[in-house]
Amino acid sequence: MKIIIEKDFEAMSEMTKNILIGHMSQDKRVNLSITAGNTPVGVYKKMVEIVKESPDYANVHYYNFDEIPVPNQAEGITITDLRKLYLNPANINEANVHPLTVENYKEQDQRLALEGGLDAMLIGLGGDGHFCGNMPTTTSFENLTYKVKVSGEEPWFVPGEMEKGMEFVTMGPVSVMRVKHLILIVNGEKKAEMVKNVLQGPVTEEFPASILQLHPNLTVILDEEAASKLNK
Amino acid sequence: MKIIIEKDFEAMSEMTKNILIGHMSQDKRVNLSITAGNTPVGVYKKMVEIVKESPDYANVHYYNFDEIPVPNQAEGITITDLRKLYLNPANINEANVHPLTVENYKEQDQRLALEGGLDAMLIGLGGDGHFCGNMPTTTSFENLTYKVKVSGEEPWFVPGEMEKGMEFVTMGPVSVMRVKHLILIVNGEKKAEMVKNVLQGPVTEEFPASILQLHPNLTVILDEEAASKLNK
Amino acid sequence: MKIIIEKDFEAMSEMTKNILIGHMSQDKRVNLSITAGNTPVGVYKKMVEIVKESPDYANVHYYNFDEIPVPNQAEGITITDLRKLYLNPANINEANVHPLTVENYKEQDQRLALEGGLDAMLIGLGGDGHFCGNMPTTTSFENLTYKVKVSGEEPWFVPGEMEKGMEFVTMGPVSVMRVKHLILIVNGEKKAEMVKNVLQGPVTEEFPASILQLHPNLTVILDEEAASKLNK
Amino acid sequence: MKIIIEKDFEAMSEMTKNILIGHMSQDKRVNLSITAGNTPVGVYKKMVEIVKESPDYANVHYYNFDEIPVPNQAEGITITDLRKLYLNPANINEANVHPLTVENYKEQDQRLALEGGLDAMLIGLGGDGHFCGNMPTTTSFENLTYKVKVSGEEPWFVPGEMEKGMEFVTMGPVSVMRVKHLILIVNGEKKAEMVKNVLQGPVTEEFPASILQLHPNLTVILDEEAASKLNK
Repeated sequence: MKIIIEKDFEAMSEMTKNILIGHMSQDKRVNLSITAGNTPVGVYKKMVEIVKESPDYANVHYYNFDEIPVPNQAEGITITDLRKLYLNPANINEANVHPLTVENYKEQDQRLALEGGLDAMLIGLGGDGHFCGNMPTTTSFENLTYKVKVSGEEPWFVPGEMEKGMEFVTMGPVSVMRVKHLILIVNGEKKAEMVKNVLQGPVTEEFPASILQLHPNLTVILDEEAASKLNK
Repeated sequence: MKIIIEKDFEAMSEMTKNILIGHMSQDKRVNLSITAGNTPVGVYKKMVEIVKESPDYANVHYYNFDEIPVPNQAEGITITDLRKLYLNPANINEANVHPLTVENYKEQDQRLALEGGLDAMLIGLGGDGHFCGNMPTTTSFENLTYKVKVSGEEPWFVPGEMEKGMEFVTMGPVSVMRVKHLILIVNGEKKAEMVKNVLQGPVTEEFPASILQLHPNLTVILDEEAASKLNK
Repeated sequence: MKIIIEKDFEAMSEMTKNILIGHMSQDKRVNLSITAGNTPVGVYKKMVEIVKESPDYANVHYYNFDEIPVPNQAEGITITDLRKLYLNPANINEANVHPLTVENYKEQDQRLALEGGLDAMLIGLGGDGHFCGNMPTTTSFENLTYKVKVSGEEPWFVPGEMEKGMEFVTMGPVSVMRVKHLILIVNGEKKAEMVKNVLQGPVTEEFPASILQLHPNLTVILDEEAASKLNK
Repeated sequence: MKIIIEKDFEAMSEMTKNILIGHMSQDKRVNLSITAGNTPVGVYKKMVEIVKESPDYANVHYYNFDEIPVPNQAEGITITDLRKLYLNPANINEANVHPLTVENYKEQDQRLALEGGLDAMLIGLGGDGHFCGNMPTTTSFENLTYKVKVSGEEPWFVPGEMEKGMEFVTMGPVSVMRVKHLILIVNGEKKAEMVKNVLQGPVTEEFPASILQLHPNLTVILDEEAASKLNK
């Protein structure tokens, strides 16, 4: 694991953008899986500036790694967010977008293998230690891409925000270990304790992201606050 | 994970030899870590025939992945066994042999990184679910190369054969996940139940080899007996 | 370049089979491009024995690298030969066969890029220094996959066997340089002089295979006769 | 080949910096070979800002790819320039610097192979079509690292600036083809014609850089002026 500590959110975003553009600038098909949410907002703003009117990145293909379907909507929460934050403003060709859905999740690992595997994946860290949709109490380390049915008993269940019986899909720990370069970004003091737990504590399904310690090529980019509790 | 089931010990050995020779025949430095013990005896016999008088494999470097020092002996049990089974009869140049010892184990992961990483590692499976020296009760999944001091309370402690306070070193789960191609060979009915446990059961430190399910490029070669309890 | 010299045709075939099986036994999609003709006959006999009733190689995809269409026949000379020598006796699933044809050759390089690139290519050497369909007088080193229209003036034109105006397609030098592991097999005294020319002489379009000296991962497997004129 | 056209020198430098930082940010030893001269001055300024006080890039090792010794000076022109432009201001540890010299050039290719190969090389383009020290009339495509003795008859010989009988060393075309990611940067109208020659013309020793068309992973970064004569 390589940990890079940047001054703040802006510097973390800049460094992350550099790493992703580095991958994308190679002369071959590049498969990226990228995260939705708040943490990457700065990264995508910078990437959009570079990619939006450029013909140079037609070699890059995009995959989401988890999805929560929305009743009566054609697409789920994750891909909708990715379209808004990055895919639409960057003018990504639809042929280069490969959504994971609750319908096709069983083929996700096989599909990725057939298309050459993921060159890089950008992920964040949940305050409860989750990564992708690998949540405490519903993650088994031996999982490939899988579906979770929410019982309402999970420690992370938020009544009002979530519904009992709702489903979501996610690439599992085995799927993520196959990514050639894994990039984890975390900012903010709120997550400092969990950063320490998952990067320097025991590997345990209680904090699913602790399994990432075993990834053969993991770059962690933190702002100073998120890094503040790490042992030197 | 790719599982190849061969008819018997002879066919398992032949397939394994093919895979190793495949790696060794590339035009670049190739770093191999290979196992001592009984399971690879057939593999090494076949490899010796190919390698012993050939100048073609000077690009291959050898590393052991665990070691048990022997009082009053210059070298430990593992490297001594490897010399007998393979390195000596194959006439491997000493400059291509890189022993892991109880003295240098703290540098093992860094050294491997500096020398380009391991291209392939050949391992066996213990009847108790261990791999390399990653034994039940003394393995933590977050370990790089580490040293174990035997307390005598371990479930695998054999009085007479082992001594309380003896030490050994081993590459840990994190080290093994970095190997580019991991090859696990197992033969015999005695291990069939454990093969099922570690390849198809939960990932748990109780059976350390279960973590191998997470390796991004694992080939398992079994004889029919060792494979007899696997779910299809 | 790594040159492996084997005693005879049988040993050359055995070594080549080992290298190919080594690639095929990894836990990922493996894209192979393999040659038709007489040189690989021994290789394919051995591979058929391993692959024909095995479910273990469903991850391997096959590509031909050149093709000569035949009037009034659905398929050309190369793929027809490959089907007879290997694909049919080995029971390769048609979904894993990706023919290059005179109709689709313009998409060949792009298609390969999208499918992850070629992991290995097995080629032979022509007595006139050609490789794939890269013949003297019709090869430019800057070519990707291209089509040749035979004028009848070429030094290798054989009246009776070939027709003026006939066409063929071939992956070009640039395409071949992208293969991750290139394996060249040559046997027999007749080719010994050309082996020396292309491996130890100047890089020149006169002997197209001389460009292979620039490939970053080339393994050459020769029998003793083919190697007999090489400088030590 | 992937060609990226940027607006101007500044944008070209920014993109190049991104690509290099992308490589350097991986969790493994990264071997870089970088160019001296004027073209990369902007790249190095940006890289120094990121690297100079960071412990995060201790995994990066640096190699020069050519050298011109200077009488009565300990080090040659290239490494002296690299120290001034980048290695010194970036505070690179001397243990991570691996000079190529007129004394050790015969070991350069073997040394690189033993140390895992070059992950990336940054090069420029000479107005006469040279790359590294591969000059018109003294380059053979089949060269590994080699030494040139200047006769004074070369078309690029500049009396006053150069001396008859002077020597230099350079990695050759075969050495450069082994680099995993090759990055060529060119700016300015003066080089626009040569950019077109070497990227879109025939592969010929007359313009040595034309051989780069055969590299399996080449990214070319041009400013608009340097790209102005390329065929679309």
